[in-house]
Amino acid sequence: MELSAPLDAHLVSPHIPLQEDIDEYRRLSAEQAAGVAVVTTVWRGRDYAATVSAYLSVSYDPPTMLVSLYEGSRIAQAVAGSGLWALTLLTAEQKRDANWLASPGTPVEGLLSQIPFRRGPGTGCAILEGGLAYFEVSTTAVHEAATHLLVVGAVTAMGSQTTWQPGSSPLVHYAGDYRRLQA
Amino acid sequence: MELSAPLDAHLVSPHIPLQEDIDEYRRLSAEQAAGVAVVTTVWRGRDYAATVSAYLSVSYDPPTMLVSLYEGSRIAQAVAGSGLWALTLLTAEQKRDANWLASPGTPVEGLLSQIPFRRGPGTGCAILEGGLAYFEVSTTAVHEAATHLLVVGAVTAMGSQTTWQPGSSPLVHYAGDYRRLQA
Repeated sequence: MELSAPLDAHLVSPHIPLQEDIDEYRRLSAEQAAGVAVVTTVWRGRDYAATVSAYLSVSYDPPTMLVSLYEGSRIAQAVAGSGLWALTLLTAEQKRDANWLASPGTPVEGLLSQIPFRRGPGTGCAILEGGLAYFEVSTTAVHEAATHLLVVGAVTAMGSQTTWQPGSSPLVHYAGDYRRLQA
Repeated sequence: MELSAPLDAHLVSPHIPLQEDIDEYRRLSAEQAAGVAVVTTVWRGRDYAATVSAYLSVSYDPPTMLVSLYEGSRIAQAVAGSGLWALTLLTAEQKRDANWLASPGTPVEGLLSQIPFRRGPGTGCAILEGGLAYFEVSTTAVHEAATHLLVVGAVTAMGSQTTWQPGSSPLVHYAGDYRRLQA
């Protein structure tokens, strides 16, 4: 049912995007709701962890996941360097952990000293205690996309940790804030 | 704070995944909450549209998005063939449209005859009326990943349509159902 009145639109500058294009995209793309996870890896003997909302389940057969990471970040370097990583999907009760692991100034030493975790049997990566589910992944491809790396991998192990309870919710990021689902 | 008790884990068969691996992955990956969108394109003079929850904002500079589509689907063929596509992010009030465009048996003719839309100025693709925001995208790369295509593109135009109202929510897919955020 096509309507005739024109759409309001912001056209992106066709050659190099202007600051106003980037600002408008930042504002509008915040309208994407996304479940929050923590990506972890072990690289050169050290644990790395960061809060992410840009990850996907790509395929069921074989089980395949993707995480998008800012190429200039420590976590991108560590995940790409290691080739093995894990995702823990967070509940709404884990907002504090999400905030901590999203802050730009997290320390290299002692990053997980306040966060209970166990090591996954498939990768040795940290799996945060109390998440909804976790996945251990072995990288099969890394694609560059603008400022980011798209890291694709095969799931080698997985599990759930929390038994569902009435009123429980995944942690959801929307419009710059952490939210929960309506019960 | 590493805990010593071992994790419960389902290990995926290392060569070819077994049906039980795929079933367990399907069950656990449903724990990923995701905002719901509709991807549209025009290919060979015809409109295509499908409900998706596997899409990402990849980068702000330049504004870059990704959608993951089952390679054997009509929408994947059309999006890959056209090179131009659009995403409309849905509100919780658009559950009916999401259900319709997610059904496997949608007709090729008259797919959008009951859904109000306008054409985006950047691509000519259908933008569903009443969404939270929309993005028009020009494909820059297509990567194969297991059964899916990862279609990456540059945002050429964007806009918002709905003024925010108290109690409004994005449409969120979680655990096999459509949900909304707590107000």
